Amino acid sequence: MTLNDLYTRIRSKHTMLCVGLDTDPAKLPAGVGVLDFNKAIIDATAPFCVAFKPNLAFYESMGSEGLRILEKTVDYLRTNHPDQFLIADAKRGDIGNTARMYAKTYFETMDFDAVTLSPYMGRETVEPFLGHPGKFAIVVALSSNPSAADFQTVGEKPLYRRVMETMMEIGSPDELMFVVGATKADKLQEIRSFCPDHFFLVPGVGAQGGSAEDVIAHGANAQGGLLINSSRGVLYASQGPDFAAAAAEAARRTACFNDC
Amino acid sequence: MTLNDLYTRIRSKHTMLCVGLDTDPAKLPAGVGVLDFNKAIIDATAPFCVAFKPNLAFYESMGSEGLRILEKTVDYLRTNHPDQFLIADAKRGDIGNTARMYAKTYFETMDFDAVTLSPYMGRETVEPFLGHPGKFAIVVALSSNPSAADFQTVGEKPLYRRVMETMMEIGSPDELMFVVGATKADKLQEIRSFCPDHFFLVPGVGAQGGSAEDVIAHGANAQGGLLINSSRGVLYASQGPDFAAAAAEAARRTACFNDC
Repeated sequence: MTLNDLYTRIRSKHTMLCVGLDTDPAKLPAGVGVLDFNKAIIDATAPFCVAFKPNLAFYESMGSEGLRILEKTVDYLRTNHPDQFLIADAKRGDIGNTARMYAKTYFETMDFDAVTLSPYMGRETVEPFLGHPGKFAIVVALSSNPSAADFQTVGEKPLYRRVMETMMEIGSPDELMFVVGATKADKLQEIRSFCPDHFFLVPGVGAQGGSAEDVIAHGANAQGGLLINSSRGVLYASQGPDFAAAAAEAARRTACFNDC
Repeated sequence: MTLNDLYTRIRSKHTMLCVGLDTDPAKLPAGVGVLDFNKAIIDATAPFCVAFKPNLAFYESMGSEGLRILEKTVDYLRTNHPDQFLIADAKRGDIGNTARMYAKTYFETMDFDAVTLSPYMGRETVEPFLGHPGKFAIVVALSSNPSAADFQTVGEKPLYRRVMETMMEIGSPDELMFVVGATKADKLQEIRSFCPDHFFLVPGVGAQGGSAEDVIAHGANAQGGLLINSSRGVLYASQGPDFAAAAAEAARRTACFNDC
């Protein structure tokens, strides 16, 4: 999906919501399997979001069978909701041959539009994911967890800024996005000032405590430029038989703008 | 596997070699599949190494079928070579629920002894992998690739040192190791001086240019304390029908000490 396609969908649907499919088998309503749960959540929330973001860890924890469920989830999305932007939340961070194999995994073996990456090993962690038309690398810059302060905010020029500047040298907005944590809404405005054009994927809204209104107020650019993620707040809005309707209602209330 | 078990095996086999199973379907001898290749390499090289390290990217690039091959490879190792230390080279770097799901993936769903981790998001990326008896987190500190210099070596106190000091606060040598790149053999001695007791997993020997002799000379501690990885240099020593014998000979020559 191109950057313009994504902008168009955000404007026409009046939402910046990305629904995180962190599907935990231990939290499902009685009698509902992971794949059926995903399909119900997807169908219920698709009108209120522009992106879905399966979290690889939850599928890998079920072994190869979990990866099969993920493949079927992606197929279901591609077939039934072709207008959605699909993000593999993988936080991969390797180099060379290995990074190329991960790019193949998410962009070819599975038909994702984007994959999240961890930049510790430098620009080589990102380069193999660039130059694939309609595909995006999403680099973790500033995360929303407490121990983000261990390294990301350290230094006269903080590490997260060094990471963003380094990656902006090699990746244009139509192939590169950044993860910027929502609980740092005060920082969003500053980050937008030196990175005006790239999309930000913003976690930490809902269960992790951030406010979507704050994020939009401080982080949006002229064209939107935000994907605001909610996972648990949508998926587990109800754990009863009304889980899909409750998820739809939670999605409708999250990250909408301009009277959606 | 406990730290003492690993020390004992290194001493008794006179080798610090870890064979990296970066099995690339495009590089296999004619007519040999990935699982059969792995089994032949494992049987041929096991006498000359103490650890095997499948690289997750290569299996994930084949989708769920690739993960099934990985599961079968781990089963084969556990059944036929129970004295080997098994490392999932995954470079995972996430937090909270997600990190716990990855710990479950590698320590429970698959029976690995250790998993490599990327520390960008702070100590929370590592904590869920600690406190599992006989299991290890292996944190990337200093890698051997050129763009390691983008972030890892930046700062008055370089980031790699800050990472190691932070993680040493929470992880003892019997649950935490570090990845330290071999092509920085000049740095190994300095790193050993502030981190005397933790194991180092050392990549970059062989195809990436480092020398095992240098690594042992500068990085070993009193009990050994090193796992020296070689992947391509062993796996693809020959791409003909003699690949297993050639891999055994390459393994025999790499990372041995005290007349192995």
